[in-house]
Amino acid sequence: MPFDKLRDLVGDGLRDLVDREDGVVSAVLQSYIAGRWVSGDGEGEPVFDAGTGEEVTRVSSHGLDLSAMVQHARRAGPAIVELTFHQRALLLKEIAQQLTAAKDELYELSFRTGATRRDSAVDIDGGFGTLFSLSSKARRELPNDTVHLDGGLERLGRAGQFVGQHVYTSRPGVAVQINAFNFPVWGMLEKLAPAFLAGLPSIVKPASQTGYLTEAVVRKIIDSGVLPEGSLQLLSGGAGALLDELGPQDSVAFTGSAHTAGLLRRHPSVLTDGVRLGVEADSLNCSVLGPDVAPDDPEFDLFIKGVVAEMTVKAGQKCTAIRRVIVPRERADEIVEALTARLTKITVGDPSDPDVRMGPLASLGQRVEVRKAIEALRSSAEIVYGDPDRVSTVGADAERGAFLSPVLLRARDGAVEPHDVEPFGPVSTVLTYSSLPQAVELAARGRGSLVGSVITNDPRVARDVTIGLAPWHGRILVLNREDAAESTGHGSPLPMLVHGGPGRAGGGEELGGVRAVLSHMQRTAVQASPNMMTAITGRWTTGSDRVPSEEHPFRKSLARLRIGDTISTDSRTVSQSDIDRFADFTGDTFYAHTDPEAAAANPFFGGLVAHGYLVVSLAAGLFVDPAPGPVLANFGIDNLRFLTPVKPGDSIRVELTVKQLTPRATADYGEVRWDAEVRNQRDEIAASYDVLTLVAKE
Amino acid sequence: MPFDKLRDLVGDGLRDLVDREDGVVSAVLQSYIAGRWVSGDGEGEPVFDAGTGEEVTRVSSHGLDLSAMVQHARRAGPAIVELTFHQRALLLKEIAQQLTAAKDELYELSFRTGATRRDSAVDIDGGFGTLFSLSSKARRELPNDTVHLDGGLERLGRAGQFVGQHVYTSRPGVAVQINAFNFPVWGMLEKLAPAFLAGLPSIVKPASQTGYLTEAVVRKIIDSGVLPEGSLQLLSGGAGALLDELGPQDSVAFTGSAHTAGLLRRHPSVLTDGVRLGVEADSLNCSVLGPDVAPDDPEFDLFIKGVVAEMTVKAGQKCTAIRRVIVPRERADEIVEALTARLTKITVGDPSDPDVRMGPLASLGQRVEVRKAIEALRSSAEIVYGDPDRVSTVGADAERGAFLSPVLLRARDGAVEPHDVEPFGPVSTVLTYSSLPQAVELAARGRGSLVGSVITNDPRVARDVTIGLAPWHGRILVLNREDAAESTGHGSPLPMLVHGGPGRAGGGEELGGVRAVLSHMQRTAVQASPNMMTAITGRWTTGSDRVPSEEHPFRKSLARLRIGDTISTDSRTVSQSDIDRFADFTGDTFYAHTDPEAAAANPFFGGLVAHGYLVVSLAAGLFVDPAPGPVLANFGIDNLRFLTPVKPGDSIRVELTVKQLTPRATADYGEVRWDAEVRNQRDEIAASYDVLTLVAKE
Repeated sequence: MPFDKLRDLVGDGLRDLVDREDGVVSAVLQSYIAGRWVSGDGEGEPVFDAGTGEEVTRVSSHGLDLSAMVQHARRAGPAIVELTFHQRALLLKEIAQQLTAAKDELYELSFRTGATRRDSAVDIDGGFGTLFSLSSKARRELPNDTVHLDGGLERLGRAGQFVGQHVYTSRPGVAVQINAFNFPVWGMLEKLAPAFLAGLPSIVKPASQTGYLTEAVVRKIIDSGVLPEGSLQLLSGGAGALLDELGPQDSVAFTGSAHTAGLLRRHPSVLTDGVRLGVEADSLNCSVLGPDVAPDDPEFDLFIKGVVAEMTVKAGQKCTAIRRVIVPRERADEIVEALTARLTKITVGDPSDPDVRMGPLASLGQRVEVRKAIEALRSSAEIVYGDPDRVSTVGADAERGAFLSPVLLRARDGAVEPHDVEPFGPVSTVLTYSSLPQAVELAARGRGSLVGSVITNDPRVARDVTIGLAPWHGRILVLNREDAAESTGHGSPLPMLVHGGPGRAGGGEELGGVRAVLSHMQRTAVQASPNMMTAITGRWTTGSDRVPSEEHPFRKSLARLRIGDTISTDSRTVSQSDIDRFADFTGDTFYAHTDPEAAAANPFFGGLVAHGYLVVSLAAGLFVDPAPGPVLANFGIDNLRFLTPVKPGDSIRVELTVKQLTPRATADYGEVRWDAEVRNQRDEIAASYDVLTLVAKE
Repeated sequence: MPFDKLRDLVGDGLRDLVDREDGVVSAVLQSYIAGRWVSGDGEGEPVFDAGTGEEVTRVSSHGLDLSAMVQHARRAGPAIVELTFHQRALLLKEIAQQLTAAKDELYELSFRTGATRRDSAVDIDGGFGTLFSLSSKARRELPNDTVHLDGGLERLGRAGQFVGQHVYTSRPGVAVQINAFNFPVWGMLEKLAPAFLAGLPSIVKPASQTGYLTEAVVRKIIDSGVLPEGSLQLLSGGAGALLDELGPQDSVAFTGSAHTAGLLRRHPSVLTDGVRLGVEADSLNCSVLGPDVAPDDPEFDLFIKGVVAEMTVKAGQKCTAIRRVIVPRERADEIVEALTARLTKITVGDPSDPDVRMGPLASLGQRVEVRKAIEALRSSAEIVYGDPDRVSTVGADAERGAFLSPVLLRARDGAVEPHDVEPFGPVSTVLTYSSLPQAVELAARGRGSLVGSVITNDPRVARDVTIGLAPWHGRILVLNREDAAESTGHGSPLPMLVHGGPGRAGGGEELGGVRAVLSHMQRTAVQASPNMMTAITGRWTTGSDRVPSEEHPFRKSLARLRIGDTISTDSRTVSQSDIDRFADFTGDTFYAHTDPEAAAANPFFGGLVAHGYLVVSLAAGLFVDPAPGPVLANFGIDNLRFLTPVKPGDSIRVELTVKQLTPRATADYGEVRWDAEVRNQRDEIAASYDVLTLVAKE
């Protein structure tokens, strides 16, 4: 890539090295620690361009003050926790917008990691999309508050004066994120966003091999000034003794090798000091072709395309890539043939060349590792496509860059290595099954994976394989002609779906929308009286005092409404003629409302009863205040339950209480959730529900 | 206790030892392995009566075939997984009923562990109550199915043909449960029940000191024949190499010391083979008295009683007991005085004597440990009540039995030990604070606890302390005059609330109703077309085919209804006169329905619109089939959202589709959840909701 272009786009750390591109030694990539960009001591370890072998930068974290870093983050925590979930989400959206505007520059830099433009889209656009998506999810699914309630209220005593509520609160801790080299942008953002939404400051430690791209993104975020200072720090280079600084409120999220994961699990901070460790590690993901799929079915093509895409995107350096291709024995030859035909079309070479389909591996060292893995696989499988030692390249030197041909293997019966050896490159192995249970059993031999896929158009195959594979997987893609056009493919984690897998895959869980946010928070069961619970949660709790509002609460703007504000209505008798009239009007002539004899035989009613819809309609007539005012619309009802039948002659009245206020930061109104309770003349609850309204802020 | 009574009530294992009570060596307590009761090799280690020092039994697990045990459990798994959640729940209820009928016998045996009758109620009745509660929760909150859906449907593509759904499936694994000595009944059942509900076979390993009581309960469960063989096995004695047998689908739930927890965390099965480990360990729980509480407030008394109860129930051998009593500095003298006065009333002695308030510790060894801990505490605290070396006892020999006086200490400023040393006995330390933030800071110095309590009648104090303590706690009790009468107290975990705590408390999470069940299952994100999702989950998925039902589905019994059965109604025009008539009828004269000018100014409507309640009432008129039939009642509506306003002249029609079937095992009807979609003449969705009905099985 042209260095003058690089010069414009990168931060100071990289600019130094660009200025010295003609020299022998690049500058050391900087870290962002305690509010300053600083360099590690010494000359550092060189990092090379994946495609050309030229030195890109050097990394060293020697002498960096990791303790100051952690302390700085701790001091930053309270300012983040003070923001509501919605406020944090809007800051992330702003970051995503600014980064999106600058993405072309990042694409240029990304070529040096070996990524083609298509690969970079997954990393760069995928990363920004994750910010947008999690920001949106948080604003839709979390309250505009700092505490989140988990599940419903638990009544712990008969009189209703002792209740339980699970709440999620922010931890006064630090989130350390140790990322893998393959997704320097997405990998950072998919961990940073949930941590920030949860109220945690983050310390990001990218893999050295591609950390210069992470550094460029972090610099843009810091320069934007959008996040509170201390929310994000960057450690370029080794993690050193960072973990020694952590305690029970801190967490480490790690993506990388099982070997390093094992070292982290053995760290005293994790073993005895309560540091939470989440791991996403190696995974021998599988794709299963259903026995129903014939070569002329659309699913056959989808399968072939999917396998080849997973082998070649990011040169197969994805922890979600398909390593095991599990197919019906009788189709194996056709499948190998079709895969081979498609693989021959893959051009390998300079990742910045638009005609190139696959770039180099991230480093020469990675190539050595992958070749070793292929060698191990060959003890129980034969290579049916590709040569691990030879590849023809376009616009690149196949030896100076870390280029490798895609390699397809076909396993012999009873092969062990394909379930155990992870070639982190463009390599897959075909295995065969002769029955569906055997396909499931083969999949399970991976001992836990991030993702599996099933390609079938038979719903029974889809069900059996999915349920069989599910306990071993964090995600399963079922692909057929119906979802193919919209499918994002086997290898793509999505922000709204969990990413992680059991067993060998590390046992961690990331993403999944707000699940990722909550996994960074502490869940606590609170036991209290309803009034105290209302005070603690900021939401009105069943059983707590209803505060009579002198003014009708529909006349109060969002700014003036208070939790607990209540209107208690007059009562209204529901007559048989009301019921008849409603039946006639709506056409709902269900026998329980119209046929006394049949209604008497009904086991729940024992006689005529009012329509549930009549009860809630009359209830609205009782509580609605008709004139124009701040209440703009009733947009829904939640959890409506009819608890005591209303019989002809019964009277009903309503208590309507402000339960939750959700101002919308980006609108001049917000949502008000009201607790509605319809009671009869004996004070029994006829119906209970939440009424959802939009109310103007002023 | 009378031995002839023991002889009647206990199982063979203990019967052997009772027959030999006059001899020197008791029999070795049996284990239940692979369908047989067997004894370990050798004479085993003796276990002594906590109060008398007499030998009760011997334990040895030498020579037991642990591999056979795990294999037997694995073979049992599929039969449990085939049962629905409701079926599993009903089996647990049956167990609870049978055990309840036999509880007097267990009470007799429990005295030997040092438990008074009141202590045993916590362990024995508490254990059975946990079974009843979790059984009931599972039937109310989980489907009558084997797969549980987590969260809503995620639309992953614009056309709606690619969707995501998180599902929980049962793992093909084994749940190993390693329990502490203090709750031999509850400790087993609170772990067994969630595992069984999740579809997992359990291997229970009680602490040797009180394992004979666990054995008696297991024997009753096995003898009942209620659970499928292999669902429950018992390992009496050391766990030996049990963990070596486990793999990525297996789990270990441990309650006990931080030291043993550390050993488990270092086990290769956990470090590298993906065995899931849940830990509930030592915890230095605190109780905070609010600065608002004066000695003549009811909260003052509640506080004093609570602290003394927690010090003395189970002789303070509870991982939830209050170890740190955090009080306002200016009240400290009064509090120490009040605690002392109440502690002097605690009679210590023979636990079977109804006048005795506190029994012995579980063993002489435990007494040595507690005395050591008190000694350590004394380096920064002085004893203000009790003598660690002397106690007067009622009906018991204070030296042969493991008796110990309650001991109250008062810490000096800046004391470190009270936050670090856990005296697992009737010992608490008073610490003082001078501001609320300092109280929170003191609480946090426990580095993570199972439970904290706050005694205050000031809602602001309740909020500030609860939110401050929450990140450090699994449970928080807020006690005041309102909930005191119903409160179950600081120390009692409840089946519907999570039990566990961060950091030092082990980081695990148990109970919490169905949360405990789901924590034993695998969560997987499934991506598929709506039709495939319906096939996989057994629940109708938005976007999948609606199957026109020739017969009106309201005429079909639960047994004949099928997921996807649909009625598509005729359409009906909603006129202005309908709206006027409805407003007049119900009294809901909100301006958007009645005042054209004001309605035109509404930002969402821009003109008159029909009432939402009118729309759903007319919709019911369109889909209801009036004659008596299997549909018995509409008991509620969920997730009603009004998506497009219905304007005068618009017409509406409904599609009503069977979404979920939940037959009730104990009734001749079940629940049917219907997907209702009201569309206008432009095919826009006016309203979407779930209709909930009760439908006869036949």
